[in-house]
Amino acid sequence: MNRVALIGLGLIGSSLARALRGRGLAKEIWATARTAATRETAQRIGLCDRVVDDPREAVEGAEMVVLCTPVGAFASVLSRLSSALAPGAVVTDVGGAKASMAEQLLPLVPEGRHLVPGHPIAGTEQSGPESGFAELFEDRWCILTPPPGTDGEAVRKVQAMWEAVGSRVRLMTPEHHDQVLAVTSHLPHAIAYTMVRVVDQVSAVSESEVIEYSAGGFRDLTRIAASEPVMWRDIFLANRDAILDSLGRFHEELFALQRAIRWGDSDLLEEFLRRGREVRRGVVAAGQDAEGRPLYLARSGHAGEGDAGEEDETQTDGERHAP
Amino acid sequence: MNRVALIGLGLIGSSLARALRGRGLAKEIWATARTAATRETAQRIGLCDRVVDDPREAVEGAEMVVLCTPVGAFASVLSRLSSALAPGAVVTDVGGAKASMAEQLLPLVPEGRHLVPGHPIAGTEQSGPESGFAELFEDRWCILTPPPGTDGEAVRKVQAMWEAVGSRVRLMTPEHHDQVLAVTSHLPHAIAYTMVRVVDQVSAVSESEVIEYSAGGFRDLTRIAASEPVMWRDIFLANRDAILDSLGRFHEELFALQRAIRWGDSDLLEEFLRRGREVRRGVVAAGQDAEGRPLYLARSGHAGEGDAGEEDETQTDGERHAP
Repeated sequence: MNRVALIGLGLIGSSLARALRGRGLAKEIWATARTAATRETAQRIGLCDRVVDDPREAVEGAEMVVLCTPVGAFASVLSRLSSALAPGAVVTDVGGAKASMAEQLLPLVPEGRHLVPGHPIAGTEQSGPESGFAELFEDRWCILTPPPGTDGEAVRKVQAMWEAVGSRVRLMTPEHHDQVLAVTSHLPHAIAYTMVRVVDQVSAVSESEVIEYSAGGFRDLTRIAASEPVMWRDIFLANRDAILDSLGRFHEELFALQRAIRWGDSDLLEEFLRRGREVRRGVVAAGQDAEGRPLYLARSGHAGEGDAGEEDETQTDGERHAP
Repeated sequence: MNRVALIGLGLIGSSLARALRGRGLAKEIWATARTAATRETAQRIGLCDRVVDDPREAVEGAEMVVLCTPVGAFASVLSRLSSALAPGAVVTDVGGAKASMAEQLLPLVPEGRHLVPGHPIAGTEQSGPESGFAELFEDRWCILTPPPGTDGEAVRKVQAMWEAVGSRVRLMTPEHHDQVLAVTSHLPHAIAYTMVRVVDQVSAVSESEVIEYSAGGFRDLTRIAASEPVMWRDIFLANRDAILDSLGRFHEELFALQRAIRWGDSDLLEEFLRRGREVRRGVVAAGQDAEGRPLYLARSGHAGEGDAGEEDETQTDGERHAP
């Protein structure tokens, strides 16, 4: 590509900048960000070729424009820059909610420019321009939701960009995307954030106790609940219907578990809990997580010393080469 | 210690065997397990000095007896072996629920033998005799809940054992333990198991989609939901009251979030979500988890290449040397 414009330089924007650069996929990368602090940091660490203040300036002459702000800002930023888009320019985004966004964004794209909505399923709990790293998208999925009648060449360009940074790409309708993400991502975030509120409110247990004993399970939820609040506020609002539906189902199931605990229904409990391992095995087999020792041990060099560690590597590598 | 007896050789029992052996903390380790398969595996991989079929034989002449079965089996196994306990023997356990257990177990310990209930806050989603590793307890907390009037020397012995395998030890009442663990461990497990049930039931989303796109958050919950079902059935039943209380609070908070999503209350949502990052920072600062790149990257050798990885190591090491 000749020139890519990145609008927003958080975890995803800065990772994409590094991935595109590291692999020489664009002759030039121009970018902008809402705050001066972010723009200065991006400048200082040399994330891209040019960091500008005005989104209109950033997209001038760009072949590909990637919206990397929280989804709630897409419409205002796109309406601001749309008349500066070069003929033939392709606009894509990285937002976690697609159906309501497509309705808002499509009318804002001028004739002869193309919108191909996208969503890379990748992330960490970090945010900001310094949190990015080039490998973030490797072996992760990226979902594209082009509306009917989208220019085929534009779709292929966006697909090629994500594949070039290591992702696998799949196309689906925005509605199906939103149903899938409601259960695989939005609901897990909702309950993790809620769990943090609960521990905050149990006055018999101090905050330091909650933190010290978090290795019992709470720790893993805090990783999810540490995701960027504004980004998640926007996703919850933009994918309201699918999230409310999955929340209803969640309450029903949780009440069933609660009832089994209250009545001491040992068989029902065991049956309820048994499914977790099978699903977990599927996740590991699909290369979406590594099994075994906790992260703190992997980090301090203990991983791989024993049998478990070695097995894991094999499993993950095996899956990497699968179709 | 002269001889330690381990009753049960799952993740905790086999890790304790390795930790005690690796540091030369017991002259002899004898053990038993419920199934012949587990005993044979333990024998084959040389987990301990002697693996016997009968719990009574395992505890003969032992100075320290550690119950490492699911909590639901404690009473029956202790009543079976109690008359074989040597004078002065100390019995401890590793169970995740303490108040109801103390009531059941105390009457089963004969005069001149001592019960010091304990709970190491450590684990992975693995189970079985081959899943253990010596470092599991390093820098993790172990809670002891000795009943009033417990022999001081017996408490010190159990405390010394856990400190010797790398843990920090704290004493509290069984009731307080159960309140703390309800929110830091039992409720997180309850909601993770429930989340797995929900994704199973959304027929519009296929199982392979759930698994492929799990990097959006669901992945981290499956790690918790893969914990051993029988162990968790027993904990849910044994800590019923504290879990039901925290489940009530969880429903209230989740309904508040759901309402804010339905009504589009943007300010309330942002406020609701903001607390997660602060709590997460506390968990990382307390050395209970490593920050940054996902586990699959740490494993495949990408960790430590960038700034983020290096910072993490410093943070974790710094905390290791803190009191």
